[in-house]
Amino acid sequence: MRKLSSQHVRFKSWIKHLPDGKILLWNIHGFYEVIVECIDNERLSEIPSWSQVEVVGEIVGPGRICIREIRVLHKPVNPPVENESIDPPEDPVEYTKHYYRYLKYPRILKSILVYSSVLNNLRSFLLKNGFIELPPPIIGKSSDPGLRGARKISIELYGGVYELQSSLIMYKQLYASLLDRVFYVARNIRLEPVENKDTGRHLVEFTQVDIEASDLSMNEVVKLGERALYYTIRRILNEYSELLDYSEIERLENEVDKPPYPRITYDEAVEILRKKGFDIRHGEELPFEAEARLAIEYNSPVWITNFPVKARGFYYLEDPARPGYNIDYNLILPGGHGEVLDGGCREYRYEKLREKIIEIHKEPLDKYEWFLGLTRNNEIKPTCGWGIGVERLVKYILNLKHIAYATPHPKIPGVIGP
Amino acid sequence: MRKLSSQHVRFKSWIKHLPDGKILLWNIHGFYEVIVECIDNERLSEIPSWSQVEVVGEIVGPGRICIREIRVLHKPVNPPVENESIDPPEDPVEYTKHYYRYLKYPRILKSILVYSSVLNNLRSFLLKNGFIELPPPIIGKSSDPGLRGARKISIELYGGVYELQSSLIMYKQLYASLLDRVFYVARNIRLEPVENKDTGRHLVEFTQVDIEASDLSMNEVVKLGERALYYTIRRILNEYSELLDYSEIERLENEVDKPPYPRITYDEAVEILRKKGFDIRHGEELPFEAEARLAIEYNSPVWITNFPVKARGFYYLEDPARPGYNIDYNLILPGGHGEVLDGGCREYRYEKLREKIIEIHKEPLDKYEWFLGLTRNNEIKPTCGWGIGVERLVKYILNLKHIAYATPHPKIPGVIGP
Repeated sequence: MRKLSSQHVRFKSWIKHLPDGKILLWNIHGFYEVIVECIDNERLSEIPSWSQVEVVGEIVGPGRICIREIRVLHKPVNPPVENESIDPPEDPVEYTKHYYRYLKYPRILKSILVYSSVLNNLRSFLLKNGFIELPPPIIGKSSDPGLRGARKISIELYGGVYELQSSLIMYKQLYASLLDRVFYVARNIRLEPVENKDTGRHLVEFTQVDIEASDLSMNEVVKLGERALYYTIRRILNEYSELLDYSEIERLENEVDKPPYPRITYDEAVEILRKKGFDIRHGEELPFEAEARLAIEYNSPVWITNFPVKARGFYYLEDPARPGYNIDYNLILPGGHGEVLDGGCREYRYEKLREKIIEIHKEPLDKYEWFLGLTRNNEIKPTCGWGIGVERLVKYILNLKHIAYATPHPKIPGVIGP
Repeated sequence: MRKLSSQHVRFKSWIKHLPDGKILLWNIHGFYEVIVECIDNERLSEIPSWSQVEVVGEIVGPGRICIREIRVLHKPVNPPVENESIDPPEDPVEYTKHYYRYLKYPRILKSILVYSSVLNNLRSFLLKNGFIELPPPIIGKSSDPGLRGARKISIELYGGVYELQSSLIMYKQLYASLLDRVFYVARNIRLEPVENKDTGRHLVEFTQVDIEASDLSMNEVVKLGERALYYTIRRILNEYSELLDYSEIERLENEVDKPPYPRITYDEAVEILRKKGFDIRHGEELPFEAEARLAIEYNSPVWITNFPVKARGFYYLEDPARPGYNIDYNLILPGGHGEVLDGGCREYRYEKLREKIIEIHKEPLDKYEWFLGLTRNNEIKPTCGWGIGVERLVKYILNLKHIAYATPHPKIPGVIGP
């Protein structure tokens, strides 16, 4: 039905009878609530909701279709029990457990398609900008220890202990030192505390588009991040104009203007938030709600930069001009959606890195020996990078209440679908 | 140095002094063994091997460069001990343990770049052919049980037991039923028996480009597989003409002609192999060596089709016209490299599937309940698909002895690098 402008159409679609006598037709190109003409009403009503059909006909006006031929391609044996609703369960726990039953529901189908398109567009943006894609390791000796309350999962293999990767910082530093600009489309696993299922923004399994560069300045990497976001959203608006509602399009066009986006430091953010009544201790990571609130203030994506060293993972680079603070930057989305990008320049000097692993994280050194050895031999260059959370970006684009609905295989803290 | 045809060049490169006074210059665009002119010999010899330099100069003839300026960008503190060799360790175990030290070695750099390009080209081939990419689940309730001797890894999460995915068949069937054509770039984990490290073709962690379609016939999916292979190799030959040796190019052009490739059935393969002296029991999967031998006979990729039902995973579709045999197809590469693609049409009927899970695999049904429920409700359509092993394809393109050298993060049976 892509060519709504032309008179004659032939398309594959799911069908749902609506209470007012209209029907809903939808497929991967769009969603249409239509009044049907030309076809015998009885013939039409014999086709059960949730069937897949092939339709041949003409568009006779806005929201009106004349159906000349309709052929059932596929009929479900047990159509959904929730026969009256075209929306999946509102409870994300219920949805996660049985997501595979709801994939053809219009709202879910839309988010799967937007997910796939976000991934494509981020990737092609990076390839155009000279980045080389590498396959992400799933298991490894040393993953990111700088997790906000999430645990890592260990497994035993051939007599050794390995972690499921929760972030690929050191691997990115290694390859960016070699190839200048690299990225992973990383699938990460984080064992989040069960209560994080209610934040609406935490998944146990998620995708990060994870870049690192040794030939770009901090400022260039920040700019690349906001351009990547803007590019991706513009492309979605162009490609999926028939999938998105007018209100969705309007909101995105209103909130996501051309970069640059405002940058405020962590210290400034703390000050602004305290004035808004948030009780924030300086030196800790900002609470989710506070971060999200900041971007609502700006009604635009906003950067928070220069976090305190002690609030973050050991691998960020301390600012020589401002000891105690990192050279780092997170991008926060408006509308209460919060952080979508986490970035920074990285520590690459042996002594400093060793010190920080011991002092800040109290982690055993042996896990990081291979990487420390590389830094000792000056094999790791100064690099900066970031990771964009793909599901968080999808959640933002479609203004979803819970991130469970933003991914083709939802796994939320405490509940893992099949 | 991409524009060797032009006189003036400016490029970033690693440098290695060769015993005969020549130097080796290499970067992600190519490898060049050159005689250097114009620059003072002493000045040049002061630059240690394995440094990264920026060179400005002119190409003055085949294999001869006049260097006007050379600037050291990066100097390793402890250059490799194996100072005389530009090759990584020949022992794949040793290489896997310390791969991160050898990434800038010309042979390794080449295989990383070819890897990235294979992935890009396979992906763009599929996108052009109407396939939608989805993010692969890493953990899940039910993974592929049809593994040749490899075990799956289980983890406990939130009180449930999940498997690291070793293949995504059922997820592919689910989404192909919904979106017609889908693919995952799946990162799979298989706990291979330690002795498989000597096959040269087994990794513990590897990438499958994994497709499934509900709107293509078996024959169309087979053709798509050979076209994907041919397209990818042609693109590598075009893009990387300066990275590949003449012998590599010649071999590929000789072996990988335009499809179609020969197809023989399993039964025919058994007959041919018995004549060659292989002791093969009908009804079992073909041994690696036998499979590889078949393609050497043809000096071309060759399809083996219609395997016995009992030799394969439960999810293949039994041929109604030939009970006891599947509708399936594997693609075998020449030169002794063996299987690169595993494919088939899938069982989608509740009763048959249930029967096969119980009888053939003796697996408990509860893991597959979610999927069986979908088949009972007729929600799973007939589909066919395949998975291409990316590392195996890289191994073939570069004619590598061991697959450890074909991936940016090697993990071989028994030995896992960091």
